Amino acid sequence: MADLNRIWTAALIVIGDEILSGRTQDKNIAQIASWLNVQGIRLREVRVVPDVEAAIVEAVNALRARNDYLFTTGGIGPTHDDITVDAIAAALGVEVEVHSEARAVLEGYYATRGGLTEARLRMARVPAGSSLIENRMSGAPGIRHGNVFIMAGVPHITAGMLDSLTGTLEGGLPLLSAQIGCWVAESEISDLLGRTEKDHEGCQIGSYPFFREGRTGANFVIRSTDAEGLERCIADLSARLEAGGWPVVAGGI
Amino acid sequence: MADLNRIWTAALIVIGDEILSGRTQDKNIAQIASWLNVQGIRLREVRVVPDVEAAIVEAVNALRARNDYLFTTGGIGPTHDDITVDAIAAALGVEVEVHSEARAVLEGYYATRGGLTEARLRMARVPAGSSLIENRMSGAPGIRHGNVFIMAGVPHITAGMLDSLTGTLEGGLPLLSAQIGCWVAESEISDLLGRTEKDHEGCQIGSYPFFREGRTGANFVIRSTDAEGLERCIADLSARLEAGGWPVVAGGI
Repeated sequence: MADLNRIWTAALIVIGDEILSGRTQDKNIAQIASWLNVQGIRLREVRVVPDVEAAIVEAVNALRARNDYLFTTGGIGPTHDDITVDAIAAALGVEVEVHSEARAVLEGYYATRGGLTEARLRMARVPAGSSLIENRMSGAPGIRHGNVFIMAGVPHITAGMLDSLTGTLEGGLPLLSAQIGCWVAESEISDLLGRTEKDHEGCQIGSYPFFREGRTGANFVIRSTDAEGLERCIADLSARLEAGGWPVVAGGI
Repeated sequence: MADLNRIWTAALIVIGDEILSGRTQDKNIAQIASWLNVQGIRLREVRVVPDVEAAIVEAVNALRARNDYLFTTGGIGPTHDDITVDAIAAALGVEVEVHSEARAVLEGYYATRGGLTEARLRMARVPAGSSLIENRMSGAPGIRHGNVFIMAGVPHITAGMLDSLTGTLEGGLPLLSAQIGCWVAESEISDLLGRTEKDHEGCQIGSYPFFREGRTGANFVIRSTDAEGLERCIADLSARLEAGGWPVVAGGI
């Protein structure tokens, strides 16, 4: 029988000078994190690295070894700055080869778009031994090699690839979460939060302060894989806040 | 005389379960990257780590050693999940102490806000030997220890801390960038891009495809520390695109 208490982890490498230069605001971390939660997999760590082979190789080898899954985004297009496939093949110690199914996919996609040029054929190159991840939005597929998942950088294409992977990766219990909010400065209730967390094993309480409409407030996110434990922790935290004179807003503010 | 060709680098560690769970979309990577560019410092790598001391320690020690500057965001509030100061002190091998100036700042800030409680005093704790970074938005200051800069996680507070650091860090030539756009599939001009980059030493060309209004296009970002070289590269790339039959939109699409 599967061990339901086993925690499955993933890491993500965001590849791209455009993120490190500040030109592009990353959107893949949050969407991949949310998707992984639903699969029962925790995103444990993220690295953003430049379009530099040595940097990609170092990150791939550090993270694939210590996580169940490793995802990468970015650098799988047809241009000179798209070096992800070559870098990951180098990290894995395998050759790069043209994947026949990927080639067929691209031939079909570009049949009415000017044909499969040499540059476009670059997008059929994979680390030897890979399988493909369906791209439901455009031509070039994603790539899977062992526990490494090589995805697009453009967020809506990444989303389509995640969609095609939904339900195919083994995970554990999904991490459930619930939120409540309060018009209180978190510094007034930090002891209360810490004590409540200690009293509810298996629950983590995160505190996220904000300043809005001229007032100080905070949302509290409780996370657990145990639905009943989560309910008990929310009820207890709410009761303690109310008893302190701070009305609780269910769902957060 | 200073070596103007020296490249100054920074790394960033984003600390927080809320980013890794997908609850919060990070906004600090892009704003710190943009700010660093203006200081003449390149953001070379980013890691997102959970609120776990060992993970923070590993990242701090890996990144501070190989970059001129290391920034962290998140985890410096008053609650039980705010462990950044303790973790960084552990990484640096120093004690945690209450910083008298930080204590005075907090006393002033909370004088009209209910007073400096024990929980709030936590925000005056620093790795021994630190100086402070002014917080222009709220009470708790940021912290500097050697080449490590410990900043808030809330983006507008981080922005105020960056503002107070503007012009105080040694950097090199800022990385200049310019953008042009074209209604072209990047796969049609990938050779052209690669050749143009090769012909302009010191310039990098990034290609950022998009699909909009039912059409395929791409923006090209050219980066260099040399303003004249950048101008020449843009002019050459534009001429090559126009000669290929693709009208260029200055500034990007």
